[in-house]
Amino acid sequence: MQNLDENTITAEAVRRLAGCKDARFKEIMSALTRHVHDFAREVKLTEAEWMQGIEFLTAVGQKCDDKRQEMILLSDTLGLSMLVVALNHKKPPGCTEATVFGPFHTDKASDFANGADLAVGAAGEPAFIRGAIRGSDGKPVAGATIDVWQADGDGIYDVQYTDRDNALFARGRLKSDASGKYWFKSIKPEFYSIPVDGPVGDWMSKAGRHPFRPAHLHFMIQAPGYEKLVTHVFRSDDKYLDSDAVFGVRSSLVSDWVRHEPGQAPDGTAMKKPFYTLDFDFILNPAG
Amino acid sequence: MQNLDENTITAEAVRRLAGCKDARFKEIMSALTRHVHDFAREVKLTEAEWMQGIEFLTAVGQKCDDKRQEMILLSDTLGLSMLVVALNHKKPPGCTEATVFGPFHTDKASDFANGADLAVGAAGEPAFIRGAIRGSDGKPVAGATIDVWQADGDGIYDVQYTDRDNALFARGRLKSDASGKYWFKSIKPEFYSIPVDGPVGDWMSKAGRHPFRPAHLHFMIQAPGYEKLVTHVFRSDDKYLDSDAVFGVRSSLVSDWVRHEPGQAPDGTAMKKPFYTLDFDFILNPAG
Repeated sequence: MQNLDENTITAEAVRRLAGCKDARFKEIMSALTRHVHDFAREVKLTEAEWMQGIEFLTAVGQKCDDKRQEMILLSDTLGLSMLVVALNHKKPPGCTEATVFGPFHTDKASDFANGADLAVGAAGEPAFIRGAIRGSDGKPVAGATIDVWQADGDGIYDVQYTDRDNALFARGRLKSDASGKYWFKSIKPEFYSIPVDGPVGDWMSKAGRHPFRPAHLHFMIQAPGYEKLVTHVFRSDDKYLDSDAVFGVRSSLVSDWVRHEPGQAPDGTAMKKPFYTLDFDFILNPAG
Repeated sequence: MQNLDENTITAEAVRRLAGCKDARFKEIMSALTRHVHDFAREVKLTEAEWMQGIEFLTAVGQKCDDKRQEMILLSDTLGLSMLVVALNHKKPPGCTEATVFGPFHTDKASDFANGADLAVGAAGEPAFIRGAIRGSDGKPVAGATIDVWQADGDGIYDVQYTDRDNALFARGRLKSDASGKYWFKSIKPEFYSIPVDGPVGDWMSKAGRHPFRPAHLHFMIQAPGYEKLVTHVFRSDDKYLDSDAVFGVRSSLVSDWVRHEPGQAPDGTAMKKPFYTLDFDFILNPAG
């Protein structure tokens, strides 16, 4: 078809998908086309603004490498990531709620035994984290894979450092024991800024938005027969709980990290400095 | 705010723009947020699909370099580029219509005098192109800058070749003469495929869409006192006029490229092979 105008072009662009053999792909691309066109029409996008958008998205893609995923960060800051989590993880009451995955997970993390120190020298105040993995029927889940990752006490993830020979710290994989319990040592999480040295930082700044996330520890828990759980545990004393830059806070995930004076830690270690404990149980949703 | 669900998150993401001091940026990002969220809700985007989208957009960004703009190509194939052209170039009747800019323009093109051969050795059938630049009041526009670019006879732009030492051909800049006329030699354009060796090619293939553009010559014409004109001249005998991969065909831009037997060309040259002529006048819209 020739002579398409700013209104007729949408039906034509959707019609061009007529030969698409993947019904779901066709549905998604049809909807994407309509919504992208609706956006441009609604704001009467100028050519200069369109070009700024092209350059912005190009820069976001080009900022990505094997350790940084700026496109996920963009999705996170637009609220899209948390929206997708909410769409896909409606759980029965009592199950631990899910939140955003974030851009800092890596499959290269090491395996640890319960009781290990996952901090591996990361700066921060020592913390002892422990709890149990259970199904929503109350049964302990033995052998669950527990993937943990967090920023250090300076609010920086291991993968963000460029001067540490790619060393990983403050992350690792554990297994729950025969009674569903897990325990490890690490550091107390601190609030931090999402990376602002790239195009996402630029848009947040121009938008007048702060880039901070309330302190949290990431967990990804997988066990046969249960839905995979991707979540955080937050700190109840954090000032950014109500304005998380990526919209990820759920009140059921906000916990007290209890401060202790120097003395004996839960694992028997004599601690010369103050330390923290967190007790948190995860309740998994049966799969299917 | 905590405990946002897939519906309440949209208002909160828009509310976070409250501190944005650039009213237009705020308007655009508010609308973008709403439409992106609407899209994800409408199709009930799964996490795997979301990740495919993240990976796709990342790959599009990473395919871009100083000679290739895959993000523009994506916009072109979604119909967004032509929609933006249509939104911004409503012209009085009689003015030459605009169409897409495309990803193959370069500011590095050389200046030529009228009558020059812009092909500079590009493969293709010789063509003599000539016409006048006028304002919509009929007055000739002298000294207009005329930027011309096209694919060669094999349907490939100079900037797409990786084995030719970055040589430019089949493109250049001219000025209209004192009577508004322009004339140059080049080659007859041929239909071609947009680049399909990147993520945009993948999506077009999965969508069951062909990647072809009808043959055309690009023009960008600028003169003081007139709106910049970005347009094409198409060939009336092209089989893709009704299904241009980037939705850019306007019937007013479709022209006859007249074939001539060997003999004397318009510039007096003796042509031993058949050649083509195109006569096309451009009518500019007064600025403001």
